[in-house]
Amino acid sequence: MNNPFFKNQGPFLLSDLINSDSKYLPLLADIKNFKELLYDVKNLNDANSKDITFFHSIKYKDVAIKTKASVCVTKKEFFDYLPANCIKIESDNVLLLIAMITAKFYPDSINDDDNHDLLNINEKFQNTISGINTLVGRNVVIGKNTKIGHNTIIENNVKIGNNCLIGSNVILRNTVIEDNVHILDGVVVGKKGFGFIPNDSINFRYPHIGYVHIKKYSEIGCGCTIDRGSLSITIIGENTYLDNQVHIAHNVKIGNNCIIAGQVGIAGSSTLGNNVMVGGQAGISGHLKIGNNVQIGGGSGVINDISDNSKVMGYPAKDFKKFIREKKSK
Amino acid sequence: MNNPFFKNQGPFLLSDLINSDSKYLPLLADIKNFKELLYDVKNLNDANSKDITFFHSIKYKDVAIKTKASVCVTKKEFFDYLPANCIKIESDNVLLLIAMITAKFYPDSINDDDNHDLLNINEKFQNTISGINTLVGRNVVIGKNTKIGHNTIIENNVKIGNNCLIGSNVILRNTVIEDNVHILDGVVVGKKGFGFIPNDSINFRYPHIGYVHIKKYSEIGCGCTIDRGSLSITIIGENTYLDNQVHIAHNVKIGNNCIIAGQVGIAGSSTLGNNVMVGGQAGISGHLKIGNNVQIGGGSGVINDISDNSKVMGYPAKDFKKFIREKKSK
Amino acid sequence: MNNPFFKNQGPFLLSDLINSDSKYLPLLADIKNFKELLYDVKNLNDANSKDITFFHSIKYKDVAIKTKASVCVTKKEFFDYLPANCIKIESDNVLLLIAMITAKFYPDSINDDDNHDLLNINEKFQNTISGINTLVGRNVVIGKNTKIGHNTIIENNVKIGNNCLIGSNVILRNTVIEDNVHILDGVVVGKKGFGFIPNDSINFRYPHIGYVHIKKYSEIGCGCTIDRGSLSITIIGENTYLDNQVHIAHNVKIGNNCIIAGQVGIAGSSTLGNNVMVGGQAGISGHLKIGNNVQIGGGSGVINDISDNSKVMGYPAKDFKKFIREKKSK
Repeated sequence: MNNPFFKNQGPFLLSDLINSDSKYLPLLADIKNFKELLYDVKNLNDANSKDITFFHSIKYKDVAIKTKASVCVTKKEFFDYLPANCIKIESDNVLLLIAMITAKFYPDSINDDDNHDLLNINEKFQNTISGINTLVGRNVVIGKNTKIGHNTIIENNVKIGNNCLIGSNVILRNTVIEDNVHILDGVVVGKKGFGFIPNDSINFRYPHIGYVHIKKYSEIGCGCTIDRGSLSITIIGENTYLDNQVHIAHNVKIGNNCIIAGQVGIAGSSTLGNNVMVGGQAGISGHLKIGNNVQIGGGSGVINDISDNSKVMGYPAKDFKKFIREKKSK
Repeated sequence: MNNPFFKNQGPFLLSDLINSDSKYLPLLADIKNFKELLYDVKNLNDANSKDITFFHSIKYKDVAIKTKASVCVTKKEFFDYLPANCIKIESDNVLLLIAMITAKFYPDSINDDDNHDLLNINEKFQNTISGINTLVGRNVVIGKNTKIGHNTIIENNVKIGNNCLIGSNVILRNTVIEDNVHILDGVVVGKKGFGFIPNDSINFRYPHIGYVHIKKYSEIGCGCTIDRGSLSITIIGENTYLDNQVHIAHNVKIGNNCIIAGQVGIAGSSTLGNNVMVGGQAGISGHLKIGNNVQIGGGSGVINDISDNSKVMGYPAKDFKKFIREKKSK
Repeated sequence: MNNPFFKNQGPFLLSDLINSDSKYLPLLADIKNFKELLYDVKNLNDANSKDITFFHSIKYKDVAIKTKASVCVTKKEFFDYLPANCIKIESDNVLLLIAMITAKFYPDSINDDDNHDLLNINEKFQNTISGINTLVGRNVVIGKNTKIGHNTIIENNVKIGNNCLIGSNVILRNTVIEDNVHILDGVVVGKKGFGFIPNDSINFRYPHIGYVHIKKYSEIGCGCTIDRGSLSITIIGENTYLDNQVHIAHNVKIGNNCIIAGQVGIAGSSTLGNNVMVGGQAGISGHLKIGNNVQIGGGSGVINDISDNSKVMGYPAKDFKKFIREKKSK
């Protein structure tokens, strides 16, 4: 993903990115001698030879060996999984160090406080039907026949398609919305995700340089929160409907034609296929893969991957028929 | 229910309501020959001889035989359950066809975008104590000694009684509020329900022509969402209190003196009796009947009807004593 | 706790506080003869000789015997647990009577409707970077380098420290916020808690005379609600992070360095130690004590105290290893 929204402050020398006094950095590589400029921070898969990357979990070892990044922050025991010509930076807290490096490239992505130069929407979009006290920021595009409610705040970096309805008291930032999307009242889209590095007395906020992509014909219910991705995109698929008070965490990707009932929560980086139905108040843990045509019963707690065409229920969620059978036998 | 809020665009000829080219309509009746005007769409029970109705589930067969509607959309296998003189319209997707017909009668009830001619409340209600940037629409009544907060949006079709407190950032539409009701900050009442007909690449939004009725002395906590009914009314009973972040879906009917704790969710069309207590985060599935004096433990998932005077807990919710006994035996 | 925010209307004579015609008061003490003024209502522990207190549950008997209050509302069977020189007021509904007395001392603490004289923030805080349509009330302090978003309503009795970020659509009242705190969009802090005395046809709203204290370096996610204490304080500890849509009820006290994931709910008067992690959608019942370094799995329902260093999961929550073992054995 090339970052469409956050301004990259690079390139940097490796020695600019890494403070050799840092307690997080028992260095092996000779940083000062490495004079190539680094242009971006990306994950193992997306990085090219001008980028810095990171490798923090053994489950990415098959990707690691193929990375094109010239520099990688990692643990000492992972060195052998990386290409020989990749410079390894050892750290006992890989995520904290890469978060600090990402913060140097994208300092504006840590907090969402860059919204104090907004204008009333009527000053910029005379042809848009919009409410009273509705504000817009920089880098905002609004399509034809799109209507916007009252007190809605469209901050920087928002693209809204044609024929959309955006309700009142909505807050949008760092978001791409396709045509014919309905966003109902009180929704917050594009806030930084709940990702940070826990740290003694002051946590380190992880920069969230991704965005949210809401595809055509979808609907987002009242009071929903959809966080933007960290290094990735948060996606709501085509013709997918979310009921009220749903929470979608950063990097989640939901397929097409899904139905997500009220008060559902989906934790970070999980993916849902197409035609998935999730009952009210169900929760899906992070980093899971839910297949196509899956049905998840209301109130379920999903803590494992679910294969295509499954119907599950319970906490932890299991095969629906098994769940019912067990309950009846009691 | 005579519709108090949405304008009925009828009457229509049957041939205006049904497009005979529609793939949803293998017609049996000779629509063109039926020259009676149809004045409204109602359920089997409420319809009279000038209305069109629908019959989509066998569980309504006892009501179907007694319907007074002159026309009924249904499945072929249900024809014999309907009165002989009722014209049967066959459809392989009854709900979709009736939704399309309802949309012709009540086109304004599909989306909630009819709020772009609101006025500042001070222009219409000089004697109401109200906040800054508070807006009101058409067909709004506000009683005596009622106070309203800041940034609150009272859209069209709202009647508020005497001695009410309405907080800030509240959104109301299509709602009747009796005397002495408190609506706290950030509540959204009267939005269309999460009802639609799933459809290949574009779902069909079901028109919600009902409203919300909040009875006297009740209180609605911060961030709650209460959706309006589809063909029916969503009711919050007298002296019933909802804590923060509760979600009440369309057509739900809650009795008097109930206590609903934080983050509870009640799915569409369920009814609760009087003196019901629901613990925090509990969920109640749709189309259930919860009796009087019922206690539902926090975090429970209710998926069956519950009889009067019961105390239940668990997921799925069962008798409280049984729940505790089973947990102790492990 | 001396009340920093609500104006005490006392002192009162005992005969002013108690209506001897009240059905809640079969009096034993000779109220008219007691001529000492009562200056405040406090709990058994905090009351001094000029205060009135209450004793409604046997679990407080060890504190009761040591109370310094000169008057105590209680049940007849608890008389012997109180000091001899403490005047006992018998009531068959201790909480209702003390609520009525508290309401006389602090009439402004029952409803949150005292916010109709707010000013635009620019009129009072010219040096604060703040959004459009942001309002402030009486007794508000805002520190240096603190930024505030749009449509945010800072009602009466709010102290915000230095270097804080307050988002848009936020509502604050009766709250102390230390330095370097981030409050994200749509949060409501300091509302009265969901505490009231159920009563035949009109519940009696319990006065909430406490406040909310949010300690330094903490973060409150979008759409969270944090209610103020009744007679006590609601506390969010240092460097504690709450994700979106979390609900924190009145009197809850959360320690330092805690991580509370999305949609968690914590019921009234529970306390969490330091370094506690609570997974998404977990619920914690009221009046519980959760120790230090506790991990609570996502979706869990906690209904018992949890000792230090425990890891629990399930509903009701139990030891994590036991939970996993039992699930695997099925």
